[in-house]
Amino acid sequence: MIKSTAQSTRTQIAEATLEALRTEGFAGATSRVIARIGGFNQALIFYHYGSLDNALLAALDVTSEERMARYREALDGTHTLEELIGIARTIYREDSESGHVAVVSQLVAGSLARPDLAKGVFERTEPWVDFCEQAIRKVVADSPLGEVLPIRELAYGLVSYYLGTNLLTHLGGAEKTEALFERLEALAPAIRPLLRG
Amino acid sequence: MIKSTAQSTRTQIAEATLEALRTEGFAGATSRVIARIGGFNQALIFYHYGSLDNALLAALDVTSEERMARYREALDGTHTLEELIGIARTIYREDSESGHVAVVSQLVAGSLARPDLAKGVFERTEPWVDFCEQAIRKVVADSPLGEVLPIRELAYGLVSYYLGTNLLTHLGGAEKTEALFERLEALAPAIRPLLRG
Repeated sequence: MIKSTAQSTRTQIAEATLEALRTEGFAGATSRVIARIGGFNQALIFYHYGSLDNALLAALDVTSEERMARYREALDGTHTLEELIGIARTIYREDSESGHVAVVSQLVAGSLARPDLAKGVFERTEPWVDFCEQAIRKVVADSPLGEVLPIRELAYGLVSYYLGTNLLTHLGGAEKTEALFERLEALAPAIRPLLRG
Repeated sequence: MIKSTAQSTRTQIAEATLEALRTEGFAGATSRVIARIGGFNQALIFYHYGSLDNALLAALDVTSEERMARYREALDGTHTLEELIGIARTIYREDSESGHVAVVSQLVAGSLARPDLAKGVFERTEPWVDFCEQAIRKVVADSPLGEVLPIRELAYGLVSYYLGTNLLTHLGGAEKTEALFERLEALAPAIRPLLRG
């Protein structure tokens, strides 16, 4: 496939912005630093994205699309609650190690003081709420719970939880979250009968 | 009660720091701004707290102790799962409106780039985990669930959830979290039989 030059420059900028967020954090991800990392002129950022905020959101999209592909693949391969919790734990570990957690945390934190950026970051929770909704529906599919649980609202709750976990992991390590996943995984066989119709 | 002068100066500094965080955010809560708000010399911050980070943590303690007293009082007055969810919703609204959510969010965000501060903020999740543990135990007290649920780990999960919710509320408003509380409150009577021994 031949990519248009403009598209490939946009991608290159988004990737350099992502790398800047990973290595320098939000405060360090300036247009000067992004341009240095990517080896291009910083004017290109504004030419292609109009603002630094848009380049930051494009960087979030790059890491999010990559992770979402992985999440979907993982969800497709799970059939029981144990498997789902087990894979959630693996994904959580990957998210931490890949720097995805750090980038999301930095952008959420940085956008507290920037209303336009906040709007963009908040809108980007939507596909994750959709994803969590699918995951919950898969778990309760054969159960009358599917009829009574507020699945959309719980999906938003799961996204809220995962964001908080990411921030706490960034502040104090993964140990306590790992412990929760471990205990829930062990508990899953006992919960499973409740999820049958 | 006669307060020693040193103690009352410390309190005054912590309260000015809290006000600075509320009105100016993390980036704006500099020693200069805190001193201006409190009407004292900025050298006093370092004399009494040793560092700006310690003054920021003292501000977090002021708002946290105030909120914790309210949480405890609320928990004491609840007897059923519905009541507990109802009061959680009221408290969530108060937390948002009082600026407590904003201060916590700002400090969590700001400490991502400051390891010493991060440590202090993370340690301060502990009393909230204790509190959530008590709340969960109250709900499952008469149920065999009390024996099998990983209550401590779930309590940490609740604190993670509440932190994530606070950040999302700050970014995009309270509507979706309110919707979750509302649906859970409506669902509580159906869940209650599961919590009986």
